[in-house]
Amino acid sequence: MPDRISRAPRVSRAPSAAVLIIGNEILSGRTSDSNLSWLAQQLGAHGISLREARVVRDQDEAIIAALDHLRGAFDHVFTTGGIGPTHDDITARCIAAAFGVDLVLHERAHQLLRAHYGKDLNAARKKMAMIPQGARLIDNPISRAPGFTMGNVHVLAGVPAIMQAMVKSLLVSLAGGAPLLSLCVSSSLPEGTIAEELCAIQKRNKDLEIGSYPWFRSDALGVNVVVRGDDPARLQAVADEVCRWIRAQGGRSDIMTLPGAEQAPG
Amino acid sequence: MPDRISRAPRVSRAPSAAVLIIGNEILSGRTSDSNLSWLAQQLGAHGISLREARVVRDQDEAIIAALDHLRGAFDHVFTTGGIGPTHDDITARCIAAAFGVDLVLHERAHQLLRAHYGKDLNAARKKMAMIPQGARLIDNPISRAPGFTMGNVHVLAGVPAIMQAMVKSLLVSLAGGAPLLSLCVSSSLPEGTIAEELCAIQKRNKDLEIGSYPWFRSDALGVNVVVRGDDPARLQAVADEVCRWIRAQGGRSDIMTLPGAEQAPG
Repeated sequence: MPDRISRAPRVSRAPSAAVLIIGNEILSGRTSDSNLSWLAQQLGAHGISLREARVVRDQDEAIIAALDHLRGAFDHVFTTGGIGPTHDDITARCIAAAFGVDLVLHERAHQLLRAHYGKDLNAARKKMAMIPQGARLIDNPISRAPGFTMGNVHVLAGVPAIMQAMVKSLLVSLAGGAPLLSLCVSSSLPEGTIAEELCAIQKRNKDLEIGSYPWFRSDALGVNVVVRGDDPARLQAVADEVCRWIRAQGGRSDIMTLPGAEQAPG
Repeated sequence: MPDRISRAPRVSRAPSAAVLIIGNEILSGRTSDSNLSWLAQQLGAHGISLREARVVRDQDEAIIAALDHLRGAFDHVFTTGGIGPTHDDITARCIAAAFGVDLVLHERAHQLLRAHYGKDLNAARKKMAMIPQGARLIDNPISRAPGFTMGNVHVLAGVPAIMQAMVKSLLVSLAGGAPLLSLCVSSSLPEGTIAEELCAIQKRNKDLEIGSYPWFRSDALGVNVVVRGDDPARLQAVADEVCRWIRAQGGRSDIMTLPGAEQAPG
């Protein structure tokens, strides 16, 4: 994947994005979403900045309202869920409604499903070839029913393995900025002890995003300070400064590279 | 907890709710949110219907815009995150701004923090006693810094253990409808095979919510059908119907009670 992504065009400023998670199963608590954090890391590594996420239920008005807002507010919208064959899979018709286009049988999508299902291609499965007029297909190497891109909205499956495969083929075609990187400074001091100094460091480094995340165990507590931005040298300098200050107060402190940063393409 | 919840008043129709997750760490992919599914299950068991969730970054405009929309659209809003002592903890000031009230030193909250921190109650920690004028405190039995309720917005910590303790004390005071229950019908048939019949069953049972969730393993695939509503007898009847139909097609099928339903108070 890094090889493929590294061929994608780069732009000077990271494009913005939102994720729209569609599905009653997330709002009932039956399913714990794992797509958001995976998508966030992939987008960050690709130089696309995830700014907001929403979870809405399988209901036309809720989906269309969220689409209308998000596609106007951000450069990209990635939706997950609702593109299967059952009655609660209504994402495609909501995209068509939001864009004011018809939902039509897409010849290539129909062909893919015919090849995959053969005589088992019933009416319900054929619904998965109904695509908003003018959309481009996104390849699904696992279960064949494709995702699609309409305008700046990228429509992905909800099943994680399928969603991930779709994103890998999609990202090649999307321009990103410099990869968004993170360094994490671990500390044995309580959050309240470092808060004032951390605020001063953030004020002196407005181009970076500094977050403070306390942790609690039965026998200990502390805080992780995360420094985020797209310039590795600036990140390292600020992380070093935080680390030195914590040690000067008698705390233990180390700098760790976060998984998201390790996945960044070269 | 069931004991305490069962004393809460009941209303005839489940109140609606939204969750607002505040924090850059979720949007960077560094942290995978686990609060949403826990909250969803607790609210469902309490007879409050979660209808939407949003994740926004630590930025005043983004938080205030989300608050303004959600508190108008739903009976309750539950926020998580951003109530600690550091510069990126800005939830309280955003709530004050959204409601057009001042952020003031809350005497009881100040007292709780003085008792907990003693001489270590520095300016950063004292910030956690700054509460929007008119808000009611929510008890934090773990790290003391309280949450609060302002109008229909309930402001909770982001650290899961603290958030959960806050919700337990909060739910006692919120009226709920009948607990929202789920039954899951497992099936070895592919989703596309049962889609048409499932659609017909949903049409005949508009008071229930029927969801279809395919699963894939390397050696098998199938679908889980989830029936959701607040009438146990109706749930059982529809789940039985789905189960019978699947078996009549030669598929394996069983009915399972979901964890969320098991947690429902008696």
